[in-house]
Amino acid sequence: MQAAIDEANKGLDEGGIPIGSVIVHKGRIIGRGHNRRVQQGSAILHGEMDALENAGRQPASVYAEATLYTTLSPCAMCSGAILLYGIRQVVIGENRTFLGEEALLANRGVQLQVLNDHRCVTLMEQFISANPVLWNEDIGEEPQA
Amino acid sequence: MQAAIDEANKGLDEGGIPIGSVIVHKGRIIGRGHNRRVQQGSAILHGEMDALENAGRQPASVYAEATLYTTLSPCAMCSGAILLYGIRQVVIGENRTFLGEEALLANRGVQLQVLNDHRCVTLMEQFISANPVLWNEDIGEEPQA
Repeated sequence: MQAAIDEANKGLDEGGIPIGSVIVHKGRIIGRGHNRRVQQGSAILHGEMDALENAGRQPASVYAEATLYTTLSPCAMCSGAILLYGIRQVVIGENRTFLGEEALLANRGVQLQVLNDHRCVTLMEQFISANPVLWNEDIGEEPQA
Repeated sequence: MQAAIDEANKGLDEGGIPIGSVIVHKGRIIGRGHNRRVQQGSAILHGEMDALENAGRQPASVYAEATLYTTLSPCAMCSGAILLYGIRQVVIGENRTFLGEEALLANRGVQLQVLNDHRCVTLMEQFISANPVLWNEDIGEEPQA
């Protein structure tokens, strides 16, 4: 989780949304990433998607044995990607500032561990408070801030 | 749908997986794309994701009024992206060669129209038959071809 938090902080330093993710296979990080909506004008590069992309094309057997770490509860898009690739273990930094599709993932047999790590909560609380419109855009909500 | 099929054929000409997608808002195509797994070594650029990315950062109100056209039934990742952004209308070229998360989308109130267009079916039948291992990789399956 520390590596995912490092990615989130890297995103923050770049002026982006502070959400980070890493994918671990057999004790080794095979992909790391952070949200790049601001940096690359991207609608799809959430932290988890960026980590999946940076892990590159992997066989199904690798995803099946991998654990995805993310600083924030995964949204519908990232949860869908987890299901597509059959990732079975997801460790979530926190789900207090945003609750993603954890019920769907659990229902499909994905094992979830929610840490509610205060560092992850603080990162998002401060960011959302300072950038409510940008945050709502990232989760597909109207900018009613 | 013709524009989505054109995208699929463009992908095929590039040596890629022939799935295309366009996003239409108020009668105008605002994003178009095709699967780029082969071309860019991408794990996340399915046709629908590429179209979303090429549409750029849009406000929630645009997604809510948009229709996504895709030549093939959307997988879990692309369905998740549709749900994240609140796209309410999806037109699907075919779901015979691959059935994605249509039940989940319908359950969440997304209106689906499945054309089972013979051009889309033929594109995928020929591609899957010639490239079973690559196709399985794209949908997160073991290469048991």
